[in-house]
Amino acid sequence: MVTGANGLPQLSSGPGGTASFEIDTLLRPALERVLEWIRKGEREDAPVLRWPTSKEARDNIIIPSISSLGSHVLLEEESKHAKRPQSSHTLSEQGLLELIGTVLDNSINPWTGRFLDKLYAAPKPIGLVADLILSVLNANCHVFSSSPVLSLVEEMCVQELGRLCGWSEAGSGSNEESQVDGLTMPGGSASNTLAIQTALATMFPSYKEAGILGALDDINRLKALPPPGSADASVGRHVTGQSEVETVSSASLLKPLIFTSDQSHYSIQKAALACGLGLESVIKVPCDPSGRMDPEALDRMLHNLRPSHKGFPFFVNATAGTTVLGSFDNLEAISEICKQNNLWLHVDGSWGGPVLFSSRWKHLISGIDSCHSFTINPHKLLNVPLQCSFLIFKHGKQALKGNSLAASYLFHSADMRDNPGMKTLGCGRKGDALKLYLTWLRYGKEGLGAHVDRGFELAAKAIAMVKAAAPRLVLYPPPESSFLQVCFRPYKEGLSTEQLSQAVIEVRERLQSERMFAVDFAPLPGQSGQFLRLVTHPSTKESDLQTLIQRVAALGEKYFADS
Amino acid sequence: MVTGANGLPQLSSGPGGTASFEIDTLLRPALERVLEWIRKGEREDAPVLRWPTSKEARDNIIIPSISSLGSHVLLEEESKHAKRPQSSHTLSEQGLLELIGTVLDNSINPWTGRFLDKLYAAPKPIGLVADLILSVLNANCHVFSSSPVLSLVEEMCVQELGRLCGWSEAGSGSNEESQVDGLTMPGGSASNTLAIQTALATMFPSYKEAGILGALDDINRLKALPPPGSADASVGRHVTGQSEVETVSSASLLKPLIFTSDQSHYSIQKAALACGLGLESVIKVPCDPSGRMDPEALDRMLHNLRPSHKGFPFFVNATAGTTVLGSFDNLEAISEICKQNNLWLHVDGSWGGPVLFSSRWKHLISGIDSCHSFTINPHKLLNVPLQCSFLIFKHGKQALKGNSLAASYLFHSADMRDNPGMKTLGCGRKGDALKLYLTWLRYGKEGLGAHVDRGFELAAKAIAMVKAAAPRLVLYPPPESSFLQVCFRPYKEGLSTEQLSQAVIEVRERLQSERMFAVDFAPLPGQSGQFLRLVTHPSTKESDLQTLIQRVAALGEKYFADS
Repeated sequence: MVTGANGLPQLSSGPGGTASFEIDTLLRPALERVLEWIRKGEREDAPVLRWPTSKEARDNIIIPSISSLGSHVLLEEESKHAKRPQSSHTLSEQGLLELIGTVLDNSINPWTGRFLDKLYAAPKPIGLVADLILSVLNANCHVFSSSPVLSLVEEMCVQELGRLCGWSEAGSGSNEESQVDGLTMPGGSASNTLAIQTALATMFPSYKEAGILGALDDINRLKALPPPGSADASVGRHVTGQSEVETVSSASLLKPLIFTSDQSHYSIQKAALACGLGLESVIKVPCDPSGRMDPEALDRMLHNLRPSHKGFPFFVNATAGTTVLGSFDNLEAISEICKQNNLWLHVDGSWGGPVLFSSRWKHLISGIDSCHSFTINPHKLLNVPLQCSFLIFKHGKQALKGNSLAASYLFHSADMRDNPGMKTLGCGRKGDALKLYLTWLRYGKEGLGAHVDRGFELAAKAIAMVKAAAPRLVLYPPPESSFLQVCFRPYKEGLSTEQLSQAVIEVRERLQSERMFAVDFAPLPGQSGQFLRLVTHPSTKESDLQTLIQRVAALGEKYFADS
Repeated sequence: MVTGANGLPQLSSGPGGTASFEIDTLLRPALERVLEWIRKGEREDAPVLRWPTSKEARDNIIIPSISSLGSHVLLEEESKHAKRPQSSHTLSEQGLLELIGTVLDNSINPWTGRFLDKLYAAPKPIGLVADLILSVLNANCHVFSSSPVLSLVEEMCVQELGRLCGWSEAGSGSNEESQVDGLTMPGGSASNTLAIQTALATMFPSYKEAGILGALDDINRLKALPPPGSADASVGRHVTGQSEVETVSSASLLKPLIFTSDQSHYSIQKAALACGLGLESVIKVPCDPSGRMDPEALDRMLHNLRPSHKGFPFFVNATAGTTVLGSFDNLEAISEICKQNNLWLHVDGSWGGPVLFSSRWKHLISGIDSCHSFTINPHKLLNVPLQCSFLIFKHGKQALKGNSLAASYLFHSADMRDNPGMKTLGCGRKGDALKLYLTWLRYGKEGLGAHVDRGFELAAKAIAMVKAAAPRLVLYPPPESSFLQVCFRPYKEGLSTEQLSQAVIEVRERLQSERMFAVDFAPLPGQSGQFLRLVTHPSTKESDLQTLIQRVAALGEKYFADS
């Protein structure tokens, strides 16, 4: 590393020879630390977490303070080591490597395969390779010229995902230009939010200029457009029971309404907050006990809006793989309702979308060909590193135009292919598509499908294990999990829901303090109270599932005996 | 790598031993390829780009198609190599490594130090180390328990940045709990957008539930709140000339208005689109010729709203380092106006924010202590890898509450420190703060300040070089650049602005086709036409600047002679 006259590392040293040298001296040893930590995680006795509670983590994790470097605290230190003053102003390479060890050792270690707490798990090595390339390319995907390969890769992934949805024959053999378009976004929430914003801009011609007020004017002047691809796309839509009015009170304005199931991800509500519709514009449709939206209830609610919900339905979010129960909404039934009512259908497949790769399970997402937009997060089920989320649109070439603004210093043409940043309501983006691309090439559609199948198999096995531990454990009814989540809890006859919920929280705390497994808990529908939510990631070892489930049974038994 | 019965790589193989093995066999050789490419970039004769135009890139870059893997195209191939069918369904390790070479060689090579086209450049090796750690941790910062160290690092960086802004004594010695809060966001646009959304939720009590319509109701019922920290925070605000009305037409409703300079980044307009205000709610304040917002014009416009702009001013965006000219708005004057009018002041320091680290240049951002929110992107001037953007709030502990929603399956308490995801309108986030943290520790505040200073010095040198090339080159007036952008163009007496602009575009095309430098161009204020915009990143070699500027002069001369 080049140092300046004062002995300090020089951030601004020229690129001639120094960067690759420093990568050699800094990135290589860092990689060794990282590998050591991954190998440690792969040992059967490796803890998945170090600190059972946030409080313990805050009390015990000691990392160097930025502010104390160079402050009086270290100036005292400096006086003891007057010969190497640089060590008090900055961290030496040795210090940095030690710090890396501290960061790793105090973090969750997903390489144990026992982080079953969230919808993501340890990434695959090919994903790390993709991340490394993105890191050294440091390319921004706002314009094609800055990121030619990454932009091509994104386009290809978007077309291929669209093809899996049955939207187009994006591969060889099709003469018609695909209308599919889309992009990566920094997470499923960002994708869902942009879907709603794009629908607003597409269906309400005045939205772009005048925002929600413009949409209101469109609605109240009967100018709202049906979503693209609707049969009567040229006609516009009439608002039931609402005649054209010149002057309306703000309270009487018909607001655009979003319908989503009560088991859907909270990002739909956050999106409504983000785009100025407000939480009250989100109408929650009830679910059946397995967590699937009730299509009849949706239909009923669309036609019998309560006074408090008075408004103009324009958007339905269906979920493919809910966060807690892993349920798949009935897309065929819901898309039929959307067609009849000229509604934009978005499918949040952040979690369950990858069933598209499995010929055995893709029926769960049957009806996807009729939706307008679709979120899929390869960073969840496909073990691509965070973050990798795609938002794709069946009629994206048209719909995404609504998001573009001229920025003459950046976009030198009006061509969206030259300027993929035009598709977003942001500007710069990372080339996250490379992670899916390399993963897809490495494993193939078949390999990704087998991966998905493996997750289902593990879930079925986990369910059998829980059943075998009856009556000490009980599954959330209905007993058959529809996806990779298995919700269960310790059981003792005669206890109230509240008592059983308390047992869940206590047993989970003990599990945390044992540090060998990470599993989350959640309240389940119908006042069922708290359950443990185990996610059977496809890479999980069956023996680990067995150990975990037995351990929960034993801890539950002990808890009930003690209390 | 573990292969299954069919010889295909197994995505779902258990974590026992295979991941670290595959990292060894895949990530290590990938790192060698990457290092080779970086070293190649460091050679003086290395091209910065391979394809001068998007068309050439599209015509010539050949990457494996996902869809042809396993399709009939490769099945034919397969029939020729019947002994290794796996190679036709997936890409072998060798094939992947070759592909990595293809990706690198067809991309921009920022390690040449001659990518002077955008506001970011090659990252520093410590940033690559941070990216590697983030990649292997694969931790999501939505809850503290999933990312204890990364959350602590984020908190520390937020407090220290707040301290640089003069908002708090976040380090040792302060007894009062800091009110500063903030978070990393995936880019400056995302940060600016969340600033506006947070201001809406903070100042308009009905916004969260009822969105923009709620804000309208608040405004028209005189209920809007002043931004936090205002002198009369308890009073609310009266709308000039507007009496309380029961029923109003949507056209007469006073809309919330955003003020920003006509040189500010287009993300402010995109944010207005994103949050349902619409483009017409953004009022552009004129700038002086150097690209600084005219505070008197702002004051005048606030008090003499044109009928077409009728509305309720609530938010002013000031820019610290504009995208084209690098101008710094006068924060002291603007913050005074904001105080008088109870307006939320946001400072977009995506590009110029890091002057905070330089004791020599921080005066450019004087007045930052009076703003409400601040965007700073270490991934630009500080050479941290993409993406690393911070949005910090002076009264963030209060303001960010407006963005939170209960999500009982994820957030197990109402404590925002345990649940940093509550601060966003998204959900999952990467731990981008680690990149700033490690960079800060490695170079210290002093080192980062010296880095900023170096950029200024280079800009001054580049200006002198352009002046020395007169009359063949001309600087955009005013001749002194205020930051790291140097805007200039080839010149010939007697030519119109249009002709000179055309020369810029043609010369830039020739530069692209020579492939040794990447420089962007942009239209400048006051009908000045197109100029080349050179960004003097602090790591740029002086000799490269000299070569580039001489080359532009020569190409211009040749162009004028030929045309």
